Amino acid sequence: MKTLQDLFVHFLRDIYFAEKQVMKTLPKMARKADSDQLRAAFEEHLVETEQQIANLEEVFGQLGLKARGVTCEAILGIIEEGKAIMDEAEDPDALDAGMIASAQAVEHYEITRYGTLASWAETLGHTAAIPLLRANLDQEYAADRKLTDLAEGTLNREAA
Amino acid sequence: MKTLQDLFVHFLRDIYFAEKQVMKTLPKMARKADSDQLRAAFEEHLVETEQQIANLEEVFGQLGLKARGVTCEAILGIIEEGKAIMDEAEDPDALDAGMIASAQAVEHYEITRYGTLASWAETLGHTAAIPLLRANLDQEYAADRKLTDLAEGTLNREAA
Repeated sequence: MKTLQDLFVHFLRDIYFAEKQVMKTLPKMARKADSDQLRAAFEEHLVETEQQIANLEEVFGQLGLKARGVTCEAILGIIEEGKAIMDEAEDPDALDAGMIASAQAVEHYEITRYGTLASWAETLGHTAAIPLLRANLDQEYAADRKLTDLAEGTLNREAA
Repeated sequence: MKTLQDLFVHFLRDIYFAEKQVMKTLPKMARKADSDQLRAAFEEHLVETEQQIANLEEVFGQLGLKARGVTCEAILGIIEEGKAIMDEAEDPDALDAGMIASAQAVEHYEITRYGTLASWAETLGHTAAIPLLRANLDQEYAADRKLTDLAEGTLNREAA
């Protein structure tokens, strides 16, 4: 990680690893969700995640690199905590509220990484990568907003 | 983590641990920063972090709980990665860009946690906690925006 280009590739691998973990975790969260709306939101985000992974693979290709991930402890930590919530929560509304909170921590991690990558792509002149990274960024923002609406609209109130 | 109240206390301990880690890390980042503006931003955020920790201690007190943290793997992962960047980056502008990215990952983690905690405080009727959690949330948003401005204004361009 000596130059900005090295950092760009490192962060690309970091978020690629993170998205692959998310892809494995979302179906479990959808199965566990008590609210139908929340289940649908997780299922919809799984489809988006698959597209985001394809976008990242396209960016790797543009750089002449093989798509591969590098272990991201942050996302593993967030997912581990989410699993503990799924295992331990007894009240179904608390379970949903906790899963939303975990999913939003994931979205925010991805928002910050895609924001950085899109900005660095511009600096480094990786012009073709910019719309792909921005598309992923916009989807993460939208997913986060949808979860906030779900949480504030109904779920938290029911869990109280 | 069986009920929403349990989750609230768990997340409060999680973010308390995270803020304490950030308090230990910011002085090292300030010393390493090449840009004077970035050093000043880290030093200013250290003062804010101390106030945020005091706010969290007040929330613990309101709940009749002793302030204590619980290990947060996500923040440890983000900080570890930031340290690797600080150790490895050779170009000073790449170093600054990498430290900004790490700091923004920290801010986004805190934004998602304070957002969740403020929303749950409302649901659970912990009315006195809401302004304290919102104050921390607003500071994290402002710190993130300031880092984006720094990165996009000068640093990334210089690092290219």
